[in-house]
Amino acid sequence: MASCEGLWRDKTKPTGSLGRLETIATRLAGIQRSLPPQETPARLLLFAGSHGVADVGVSAYPSIVNLQMLANFRAGGAAINVLCRHSAIALSVVDCGVAVPTKNIAVARAMTSGETRKAFLLGWNSVPRDTALLGLGEMGIGNTTIASALTAACLQVPVTRVTGVGTGVGERQRRQKMQVIRAALDLHRLELADPWTRLQAIGGREIAAIVGAILRAVSWRIPVFLDGFIVTAAATVAWEMCPSSRYALFASHRASEPGHDLLLKYLGLDPLLDLGLCLGEGTGAALAISLAQVSLRLLREMATFSSAGVATSESAVA
Amino acid sequence: MASCEGLWRDKTKPTGSLGRLETIATRLAGIQRSLPPQETPARLLLFAGSHGVADVGVSAYPSIVNLQMLANFRAGGAAINVLCRHSAIALSVVDCGVAVPTKNIAVARAMTSGETRKAFLLGWNSVPRDTALLGLGEMGIGNTTIASALTAACLQVPVTRVTGVGTGVGERQRRQKMQVIRAALDLHRLELADPWTRLQAIGGREIAAIVGAILRAVSWRIPVFLDGFIVTAAATVAWEMCPSSRYALFASHRASEPGHDLLLKYLGLDPLLDLGLCLGEGTGAALAISLAQVSLRLLREMATFSSAGVATSESAVA
Repeated sequence: MASCEGLWRDKTKPTGSLGRLETIATRLAGIQRSLPPQETPARLLLFAGSHGVADVGVSAYPSIVNLQMLANFRAGGAAINVLCRHSAIALSVVDCGVAVPTKNIAVARAMTSGETRKAFLLGWNSVPRDTALLGLGEMGIGNTTIASALTAACLQVPVTRVTGVGTGVGERQRRQKMQVIRAALDLHRLELADPWTRLQAIGGREIAAIVGAILRAVSWRIPVFLDGFIVTAAATVAWEMCPSSRYALFASHRASEPGHDLLLKYLGLDPLLDLGLCLGEGTGAALAISLAQVSLRLLREMATFSSAGVATSESAVA
Repeated sequence: MASCEGLWRDKTKPTGSLGRLETIATRLAGIQRSLPPQETPARLLLFAGSHGVADVGVSAYPSIVNLQMLANFRAGGAAINVLCRHSAIALSVVDCGVAVPTKNIAVARAMTSGETRKAFLLGWNSVPRDTALLGLGEMGIGNTTIASALTAACLQVPVTRVTGVGTGVGERQRRQKMQVIRAALDLHRLELADPWTRLQAIGGREIAAIVGAILRAVSWRIPVFLDGFIVTAAATVAWEMCPSSRYALFASHRASEPGHDLLLKYLGLDPLLDLGLCLGEGTGAALAISLAQVSLRLLREMATFSSAGVATSESAVA
């Protein structure tokens, strides 16, 4: 990282004046232990799941949309397809069992321990070893309810502070969402302290898969660009399971869900972008990867003071 | 703009979930009166000037750097060259008289009225009619001092609130900067109320040129992406001369100069990015144009609910 900072100091610009465009590349050098940092291939893994809670009135959309959106991803028509094409990011959609919803967390554990392990391993095995930059996204009608429950349990904050409008529910549906979450937290209260049993009781398949993908990527020193609220909720589980995982995580953007901000503070991550996105799919992660690409291109292509014959502030003082 | 909002509502995503990536395209449609909005050619005009105040210890760099950086821009080695290549933005560097510094504003008017008119017209004539998206940048050792003076005069706030470290001066030099600004504001106090005489007394050639470029672009309904503190200070002059100009302005990013935030509030503009940049050159504007390109590509390439066979929240309710 110090060598990368040295490269930046030689570039024809005042020291530090590219702000976070400098620190992104410096962090990448540290995570990858590579200078210049590797830029290709950039990949985005989009984990899709399906949730029992979606059938009890917490979302503006029915679960059938999960299957329709899977088809849309495959046809290339979703927002994440456009963003990945724009920034030469290879997109893989991982179906974590969209056809089989998890159980309604208000009345049962979301998954069995076998299902949780299977989903975790699906994520773990979905990260190619050669990935230079990894973005993580998700899709699953009802999963902001799941992320809100995980956030309330993890941070021990009131449900009302972590429950937003998701894909656009009204105030009546938001109250229904909070009721479901409160019932779930009460029912599973003995299983919430441990991150793994919490994941099983009030999580979901795509979230367990993201936990697996984060831990595998981190073990390989692959930088991970988290997307919004749901992916960040998964990152807190990964962090509790493996505290050193945080060194490789980038917060891509600040989503407009109220719980996201609390999770970012808990993880100590400062998001790169704040564009009012609340779409998921990995859209924020793809945009953050494009900033990382810009950062690396500046590091590669900018002239140095000596090559361009420009006086430095030190030489000016001397 | 309403038609553009209608297009967004048909896209396969919850309404409004792309946040500012939606509103950028919608604003572009309104400014250009074109749907879809025009995307090419994107251009960035970089206005370079030279300031008498640079010789009285307000900057970390000597004025000779202006000429060296002009050569660096032409060789393609500066940060703005890299960013423009990255986003297919045509970069033009406009030399507003780098070889001849303006006068030190603490002891004289920066420019004569003839010089001010000439610089304004240089900017006015530098905007090609066919431009779809216009970014504005600047370079001129000492010009954060000028921008701070213009900001203090325009907003009538204390000099200490609008004076930052520029390209990286120490506290002693920052005090020197404030002394120069206070002397200038006192000397020219009778000329500060009118935006044109203010520009002449405490402005600079590249700033007058940017005022001209903004007014010409706005008159042609070309969207303008302002860069940081200095370009935004020029925009306040343009706004006072022509209040309707604001409709076509985008604040690209929040620069780390303290006066910039005050100017953005004054203009009522919310910056798209906040990456801690303080380089100038148009670097923030180039990044914001790349976001506009992403916004327009999403509008063009995303599938609609009917084309992708995805249920809408309305059809789900029905």
